Order: sequence, then C-alpha cells, then structure tokens
Amino acid sequence: MLVTTPPDASPPPSGRRRVRLRGFAARADVAEVERFLASISPALPAEPVALLECAGRVLAEDVSAGVSVPAFARSAMDGFAVRGEDTFGASDYDPIRLKLSGEALPGRPFAGAVGAGEAVRIMTGAPLPEGADAVAMAEVCEEKDGGVAVSEPTPPHKNVGAIGEDIRAGEIVLRAGRRLRAQDAGLLASIGCARVLCHRRPRVQLVITGDELLPPGAQPSGARIVDSNSVVLRALVARDGGLAQGGAPLPDRRDVIRLALASSDADVILVSGGSSVGVEDHAPELVAELGTLDFHGVAMRPSSPFGVGRIPRLVFLLPGNPVSCLCAYEFFAGPTIRALGGRSRAWPHRRVSLPLARKLSSQIGRVDYVRVAIEAERVVPLATSGASILSSTVRAAGCVIVPRGREGMAEGETVEVLLYDEEPAP
Amino acid sequence: MLVTTPPDASPPPSGRRRVRLRGFAARADVAEVERFLASISPALPAEPVALLECAGRVLAEDVSAGVSVPAFARSAMDGFAVRGEDTFGASDYDPIRLKLSGEALPGRPFAGAVGAGEAVRIMTGAPLPEGADAVAMAEVCEEKDGGVAVSEPTPPHKNVGAIGEDIRAGEIVLRAGRRLRAQDAGLLASIGCARVLCHRRPRVQLVITGDELLPPGAQPSGARIVDSNSVVLRALVARDGGLAQGGAPLPDRRDVIRLALASSDADVILVSGGSSVGVEDHAPELVAELGTLDFHGVAMRPSSPFGVGRIPRLVFLLPGNPVSCLCAYEFFAGPTIRALGGRSRAWPHRRVSLPLARKLSSQIGRVDYVRVAIEAERVVPLATSGASILSSTVRAAGCVIVPRGREGMAEGETVEVLLYDEEPAP
Repeated sequence: MLVTTPPDASPPPSGRRRVRLRGFAARADVAEVERFLASISPALPAEPVALLECAGRVLAEDVSAGVSVPAFARSAMDGFAVRGEDTFGASDYDPIRLKLSGEALPGRPFAGAVGAGEAVRIMTGAPLPEGADAVAMAEVCEEKDGGVAVSEPTPPHKNVGAIGEDIRAGEIVLRAGRRLRAQDAGLLASIGCARVLCHRRPRVQLVITGDELLPPGAQPSGARIVDSNSVVLRALVARDGGLAQGGAPLPDRRDVIRLALASSDADVILVSGGSSVGVEDHAPELVAELGTLDFHGVAMRPSSPFGVGRIPRLVFLLPGNPVSCLCAYEFFAGPTIRALGGRSRAWPHRRVSLPLARKLSSQIGRVDYVRVAIEAERVVPLATSGASILSSTVRAAGCVIVPRGREGMAEGETVEVLLYDEEPAP
Repeated sequence: MLVTTPPDASPPPSGRRRVRLRGFAARADVAEVERFLASISPALPAEPVALLECAGRVLAEDVSAGVSVPAFARSAMDGFAVRGEDTFGASDYDPIRLKLSGEALPGRPFAGAVGAGEAVRIMTGAPLPEGADAVAMAEVCEEKDGGVAVSEPTPPHKNVGAIGEDIRAGEIVLRAGRRLRAQDAGLLASIGCARVLCHRRPRVQLVITGDELLPPGAQPSGARIVDSNSVVLRALVARDGGLAQGGAPLPDRRDVIRLALASSDADVILVSGGSSVGVEDHAPELVAELGTLDFHGVAMRPSSPFGVGRIPRLVFLLPGNPVSCLCAYEFFAGPTIRALGGRSRAWPHRRVSLPLARKLSSQIGRVDYVRVAIEAERVVPLATSGASILSSTVRAAGCVIVPRGREGMAEGETVEVLLYDEEPAP
C-alpha cells in the first residue's frame, strides 16, 4: 500500500519557504505492515565467522563432524587400565594383584600394551592402552611395591569412553538456522572447526534529522535539545544483532537527507524524525523519489507517522518523538533486523501475564502500545499519554499491546506484558 | 571450609614422576559454597562509561537531571500557536480568523511574540512563542491569504508540552544498581550526560591446562584433543558482562600454572582442568600455597572436583570435563562474575515449569545438574550421564537442578527448567 498525499500548493506567507501541513490519507494496519516486512526480510547471505566470534550468531549451514570425539577410547576415571577379565572375583577381602607396567596420561599415552595380569596407571581422559578394556577406579585400588591390588571386579568397558561416544564422525552436529550457544561453539572447537558460515549481521545506518538536535553527550541549550533517539536505536540495534553506523544529527534539509539516504551502503536505514507529513518531513517524499514508499502512516498509537520503503535498501521512517521512535523500532525495525541476521522476529525479552490494576482505554481500529509498571503482581498503565515523554519508558517495566479490535481492556483482565528488562528477577 | 587432603607419600614406581591418587576428604554443600561466594563478591568499583557504551552496564551512582526536559514549553502537534482565549467560540460553521505572524520550527524559534488575534505556524517540538499559550492542530485550521481560520476552540495549554513534563531539573532519573536499558541511555543523553559511573566489568583470566589440549581452531590429532572449555567459557563470560582474557592451553606443569596464577592482573581466574586430586592436578595445591583454598570438592554431579580459593584474587577451579566445566561455571563462577559487574546473580535466561516425561534419579546429599530436552511440553532427561559428553548440552534445551534433599523426581512432577537458549520461542 502506497499512500500518496497530494501536496498543498498554497504559497508560504512568510515567503521564506514552501510550507505544507497535511494529514495522512489513510493509515495501514499494523498486521499488514508486519506481513509485508516478513515477506521482504529473509536472512542475509552467509559469511565465515571465526570460532571465537560465533557464539550468538546464527548458523547458515549444517555442520557435520569430520572426526569422532573422542577419536580414541579414553578413560572416564582416574585409576588403572586393566583387562577386565583379570579382575573377576576381586573383593576387599581378596584383592587381585596386578603388575604395574607404566602410566597413561592425557596427551601422553602409554606406549606399550597391557598384557594379562598387568595394569597401567591412567588419568581421566587418557587414551586406553592397547590390550586394556576397562579402568578400575583409583578408589578400589591400592598401589604398592610396583604392583596394584584391585578390590572390585571391573568388567570390560567399565569406565571407558568409547570412540565417538560424544560425537560420531559424519554426524550432523548443528543445523542451519541455529543461534549458536556457548556450548555449541565449544562443540565446534572439539571437532576441529576453525570457522563456520553464519548469516551476515545487518548493517544499520542511523539517519537522525532535526535542526533542533545536538549530538548525544552535548548539553541542551536554548531551543536545542540533545538527540536521544540515536542512543536508543544504537543500543537496540546491537541487542538485535545489527551493526549500527552513523547517528550524528543532520539538519532538516532535503539535500542533506537525500544524500544520507542515497549514499548509505547499509542493509537497513533507520530515519528518525521528519517522517510525518509536516513542513520539515522530507524523508517520505525522498524515499518515494528514490524507490518506493510502501507504507506511510499506520493505525497505531504512538508511532502513527511510521513509514517504510525500499530505495532498494530498506528504509524505516521512525517518528522523531522518542516514545514513538522506540515503539516503531520495536514493532517493525527490530523484528526485521533480527530476521535479517537469521534470528527469531519474536520479542527478545521475557513476557509475563498478569491482571490489569485498572482499565486501559483504546480505540477500535488502532493498535495501542501502552507503557506499564508492575506493582504487587498487577499491571499498572502509566498515566502519561505523551509520545515525547521518554521517561515513561524508563519508569515502565514493559509494554502492553492493545489489539486493533479492542476498545480497551478491563480492570482485572489478564494481559501479557512484554518486559523491557534484560535482567531476570533477583 | 578448607579441605586438606594429606599427600600420599608412596614413591612413583616408574621413577619418572611423583604420583598421587587421592580421594576427596569431604565434599562441601552447594548452598554453602554459594553463600560463601555471595559474601565475597560485592560489585566492583565504578568507572566512567561513555554514553554510547553504557547500555547493558550497571549504574554505580544515582543520576539526577541538571536540566528540565523540555527546558522550554513546546508544541505537541503540528499546527498554529495561538492565544487560547482568541479561539473561544470557533466552529466549522463560524471559524475564527487570526493573522499569521510567522513560524516556529524545532531549533528555530519564532523570534517575536504572538499578540491578540495573531497566530504563528508551529511544528511539533518547536518552542511555543511568547504570548501564545496553546496550539491549534493543523487539522482544524486553514491557512489562506496571510491568515489562518481556526474552526475549533483551543483552550490555553492545549497541545503544549510544559517545561519539565518529561524530566524536572533536580529529579533523580536513574538509581544506582540499575542495569541500563536502551531507553535509559537515551534519557541520559536528553539531560546532557556525556558519561556515567558504572561498575567496572570484571576481568576474567582463563587458565586452561592439559598436555593433551590443542588450541581452538586446530584439528584433533592422535591422543590430542581440541580444547573446547576456553571457547565455552569465553562466550559465557561475555554473556555475564565480564572481559575474558587468555585461554591458550597450558601444559600440566606446576611452574607454568603457578606463573599463570601468580602473574594475572584479572579480578577472577578460571582454571579449567587439573582441578581434582589426581597426578596432574596442580591447581588446588598452588592456590592453597599462594593464598587460601576455601573449598575443594562439592556435593554435586557433575563438577564434584570443583574448588574455589583466593590468592587473593578469586580463583575458580573448574573440572576439565566439558560438562563439568560448564556446570561449575553456571553454578558458581557465572553468578559471581555477574555480581562483580553489579548484575543479578540469578540465571540469566528464561525458565519454564513443565512436567517430567519420566522419573529422574539422584542421590540424597548431592545436587544433580541434569540436561533435559523438552518434547511435547514435557521434560525429557537426556540419557547420557557422562560429564565428558559436551554434545549432551548441545542437544539439551536446558537443565533441571535436583536439590540435595531429593532422591530423585517422579514422572509427571512439575520441574523448573533453566533454559540454555538466548532465543525466544518464534
């Protein structure tokens, strides 16, 4: 759906600039925009990733083991490698004495073979010497005078790890699409992988516009405020596996924004500010000019001026108001960035279901993103309605999504809260 | 509790090296070790952290706002700044006409004042001009012939964001101990912070020992296996907010390990391998020699040879078997590293409670760490018992902890699974 809004041709009375104040012709449905985004954001191509960097990345290939782990029979205990049959009948009362022929350590195998009536001292993980087929635990053995007394029968295979007991050569150990955990990376090391193919991390260009904006780290001064959206977006992009670039505020000038859009080499561009239909809102027209503006205006609150297009790289038009920017990112850009990197589109934090402490009003036909606190196991909608009140998202524990078909939610109704927090409850 | 095990003085029959095979004199209780660790791991001192780096870090100070946000009354809409009283009685049928005196844009305020019968075109976020006290929405205004017709009454304060509506100067905006979210970092930007004090990230030295070990990335060969523990630990330390250093495998030589322990400048040392009471297990004695070995041997499976000491920096002795190493890290080292960085000690991933598909056997007096799969909403303990089977932690969805007082858990009993996964269900 492409919303085109005819420009208002009334001349600017100040003579200084062309001015238009327009409304949205129509607003798209949130679900429709989500379906559209899901249809155009397959995982990015693969790139080789070094073993020590692969945890958290998403595998783009099935990985099979080229070797068995272990590649040799190994001792599972500290003790003595024996021929199991030699120990039959051993007991505390009547231990069986074997001749000690040497020792086997991990990485320093015993060079000879274990003959009948012989034993080799062995440490956990050491290769089982030829001839031996079992390991008598240290706890049931006593070493003395060049021999060892075994006081428990130790049948063949006892305390021995067989070749391939962990991984068999040829086995597929990890499948494409898996987000690699710490232990997955360890497994890859154990089969001799030095690198694996993972989906490339999306590069995300931040285009922050607004004449009033000072860069993060500056002091607000006069009519100028400090940009917070680049800071929030940068952190969210990192959370979602993307690589953020740029972010210094740009003036609300058509030529500057056009250049920023046209010159980016990123996979995704996030424009913050100038996304609506006002005087200074150049981005939607520029996107339409450079490619297609697929959606502009969605039936949600906040973030209704959200838009998305392709030039051909994906451009998200995020409203400049900080809450709207956050909300539009979480609804649309975040899931897309996660999906481009091969991750799940789903909300990346925990969710809890709890009853509402008081009713929540909304409007049929519009999705509402409501910041909520959690108090005494109840969900408390925060009183503020302003899309400019960033502190509301700081006070909130998370958000509740009121679906478009609902006029609101009743006190006591159980609602699902998407928690903002990374941190588990202590 | 300091477990001292008398050395066995029997001479090595091979003559090549001094050999001891000993058991643990006693095993400490898991809860006791956890209490000890909690008592000695307060959050590390603060360091200044740049705004763009602070998301995910833990604040070590209360932060109060030096300025109000906004610092000026601002328009909450695109429209026209007016004196509210001028619009009383306005209607579609009988709009009120005002003279258009100029425009106010964000960052480019209107320089003059709005007099009676006047209006100034204004964009969202722009400072409200002097004289005006309300903003008539663009949707109820029509601009024509140097004037504007307002067709709806707009009382004073309407569509105006007051000074400090987001943050009031002097207000504490974030408290010490808070793990900073993306929006928290944004809020800090908006009040002009360039950096904040956060708890220092713990530096974590990896000391990986084993003559049999090849470095990650190598191919396993003969009796030599590739170290996986450094790969797993490095990823887990990063997850837990630590800065891992080192990790190349070291030979099982007392002098080499002693030097690695004594020369580290890290906050925490993780020793993998050589942690038990066998021939090659130098680390426990070295820790006792360089400081105190507070615990050695815990009543759990796997990871019973786990130990911890202070030289005075904290040393965790993790068993070399990969599952034991992972388990001991997750029980003891991980929570400590998180706490040192100011984070919660709690399990950092999601938990689910589901019924057991079949019974789980354990032993009274011992904590069991059981890898489990989740199939058809039931918890399936994985058949393998081997602490060396790293692939079991790859196949597992998470783990179930069987407490020390339980002999096991019955089929159908609801158990809590600590999920390994970062990834939410799709």
